[in-house]
Amino acid sequence: MRPPAQNAELALLLEVAGTPKPGNVDRKRDLPELRFDHFLAGAVGARDGLEMAANGASVGPAFERAVEGMATQGGDNTQFGALLLLVPLVRAAREELSQPIVESVVEGTTVADAAAFYRAFEHVDVFVSDPPAGMGPLDVRRGSDAIPALEERGLTLFDVLDASVPGDDVAREWTHGFERSFLAAERFADADGSASDRAAAVFLSLLAERPDTLVATKHGDAVAREVTDRAAEHLERDALETDPAAVDAFADELVDRGVNPGTTADVTAAGLFIALERELLDV
Amino acid sequence: MRPPAQNAELALLLEVAGTPKPGNVDRKRDLPELRFDHFLAGAVGARDGLEMAANGASVGPAFERAVEGMATQGGDNTQFGALLLLVPLVRAAREELSQPIVESVVEGTTVADAAAFYRAFEHVDVFVSDPPAGMGPLDVRRGSDAIPALEERGLTLFDVLDASVPGDDVAREWTHGFERSFLAAERFADADGSASDRAAAVFLSLLAERPDTLVATKHGDAVAREVTDRAAEHLERDALETDPAAVDAFADELVDRGVNPGTTADVTAAGLFIALERELLDV
Repeated sequence: MRPPAQNAELALLLEVAGTPKPGNVDRKRDLPELRFDHFLAGAVGARDGLEMAANGASVGPAFERAVEGMATQGGDNTQFGALLLLVPLVRAAREELSQPIVESVVEGTTVADAAAFYRAFEHVDVFVSDPPAGMGPLDVRRGSDAIPALEERGLTLFDVLDASVPGDDVAREWTHGFERSFLAAERFADADGSASDRAAAVFLSLLAERPDTLVATKHGDAVAREVTDRAAEHLERDALETDPAAVDAFADELVDRGVNPGTTADVTAAGLFIALERELLDV
Repeated sequence: MRPPAQNAELALLLEVAGTPKPGNVDRKRDLPELRFDHFLAGAVGARDGLEMAANGASVGPAFERAVEGMATQGGDNTQFGALLLLVPLVRAAREELSQPIVESVVEGTTVADAAAFYRAFEHVDVFVSDPPAGMGPLDVRRGSDAIPALEERGLTLFDVLDASVPGDDVAREWTHGFERSFLAAERFADADGSASDRAAAVFLSLLAERPDTLVATKHGDAVAREVTDRAAEHLERDALETDPAAVDAFADELVDRGVNPGTTADVTAAGLFIALERELLDV
């Protein structure tokens, strides 16, 4: 039995290895500025922060450390969103990896956790949309400059992420009991093939279900909806099995268009971690 | 700057990602029983032992721990030989990563290090040839049962590896000042492309130079020589650049024949580590 921090790092690696994952870096595809090698280095760098969470550190500092380590590579942001899911899951696994326990972990976050989350943005460029009206002082892109406003309003990390829903499906996991992550874990158990083969299948099933919020933020709702509808068509006809060339072509097209469903990859990584921890998946 | 244990883990990951590496698992190829996923998990599992070496543990116990962690995956032996090179290199990097320092590290190994090395064989199936005459009691396949004979003869880990040369080019690195590993690091600096692209180029150059000792042990000297001669032909005409399809076909053929130049991959990983530590290579 592999310890939780190792399973979390391995989840990051198996996620990026899964192919085809339309639009994203995978075992067969690099993006122009973001390559497979960067994801390998990002996963290696994240490990110390994941170990902190496994050893009982608070979510915010463990996340900040994981992001700082992840960012020690030339591709900039590789796994920020995945780590925002993995860190509370690893923390929960200390006690029990279940939805109620991870809910209590995220609901128990503090203003100090929120401050660490803001500091994490100083280590890496994360693509985010403008904050809602009245939230300008709390724009995450301000990094630690936003911490006084955070403290004045007494916002915890849970509060900060709660304010990002809808529009960010990583944040939504925090406020919905990580339901898609746990659902993804079940799909890993039910899928066929090696762990990374299953990563491709689970990714497609998640993408077919809900428009990817990173795609929506970067390219608009219509593109995000189009991508989901097309993923649903491939899923419907079991194309990974029956017509893999069509899924490969879809993957290449999205890469060419610069359409990267990163949020869906984050949830896939979280599901992989849960499946590894529960021994639903052999590697 | 990434710490040495992280660079060592990353070297294992970038090595396996490099493609085409004729005969071996790479970003495009799995073997029937040994898949890319297993190498990812092996690298993750090895990290704790690499950390031990980075923190000053003796070579033998750090190696045993690295192998024990590496073996926590279903593919059995993925990176035994690479770790036998990386552990003393990581240990040397505490002081200075140079040939004289790593020589002093391996020459300073003890009988206790040799005992830990023998215990490491209990965690994993390693393909080895029969021991030389008179060495039967010291057959590594006996695992810890061989330790009394080891202690009686007062053999250090360096002595044990010295007795494996010729016939094992990982052991040869130990007795030749890691010369090919350091040479490989220079080639990483001189090659073009991403780190994993360079891994493919450096692998081919090493394979073209000396018959792979794992291939010789499994398939005989003639096959090992044939593989090296053909690698040299590809290298000679710069086929990775000018005719990549030919190298891909060579890679597929060796995989089909079950001819896996694993020793050459081990030296490639060691060279990658040195190149990362010396910042000759960006990721």
